[in-house]
Amino acid sequence: MLGDVVELSVVVRDLDVAIERFTEVFGLHVHHRGESEEFGFKNAILPTGIGHVELLQPTDPTKPVGRFLEKHGEGVYLVGFECHDIEGSVERLKTQGVRVDHRPGREIAWIHPQDAHGVFVELRTRERYD
Amino acid sequence: MLGDVVELSVVVRDLDVAIERFTEVFGLHVHHRGESEEFGFKNAILPTGIGHVELLQPTDPTKPVGRFLEKHGEGVYLVGFECHDIEGSVERLKTQGVRVDHRPGREIAWIHPQDAHGVFVELRTRERYD
Repeated sequence: MLGDVVELSVVVRDLDVAIERFTEVFGLHVHHRGESEEFGFKNAILPTGIGHVELLQPTDPTKPVGRFLEKHGEGVYLVGFECHDIEGSVERLKTQGVRVDHRPGREIAWIHPQDAHGVFVELRTRERYD
Repeated sequence: MLGDVVELSVVVRDLDVAIERFTEVFGLHVHHRGESEEFGFKNAILPTGIGHVELLQPTDPTKPVGRFLEKHGEGVYLVGFECHDIEGSVERLKTQGVRVDHRPGREIAWIHPQDAHGVFVELRTRERYD
């Protein structure tokens, strides 16, 4: 079910400061930037090879990313594992009592961190950075 | 400098319980188990493809892994990125004021989480699971 880590989402206080660190110091580059009003963050995607680092700055302190920063400070928020059968995996997880959030038809699902030893696990496919 | 994520180290309270979750529920398998007196943990390595998940249970509450569990609870402790030039990367990081721990001749180095937006970054090579 869990394949390679293809996304590492990191919550940061200041997206521009974090981008500078991950590009000029750590040698990655920004593929694109985005924003989600629904989830309350702005982000940047930095490819690593088969996967990417996502830097997330909260824009709404009442939503999960903002609450994470308030509680934990900066750090790893979510880990995306490649999964080749998301629908089937979601069904199997549910029968085993795992709390999993999945919107039918979308190639993505999230496992509750309390059901994954503190890791906020995302099941996903690889992105293509052409 | 940072390539793909090839190691995700997760601190857990009980290694056997965590192994059961990551194998029977999440579909990985244990390649081997180990222990480090120096770093105060016992662990299990579960390959994911090009990389692996490492489950870490502290054996000494005064050492970093034990202190992490006490402070943060279970969760992601360290992220290992593939790096093709560890010695050169360490030199460049040092000239940029990044705190990096490296033992000469060893193909591994660690960047201080405070210098990587809360991520405990390991620079490493891929393991081979033959």
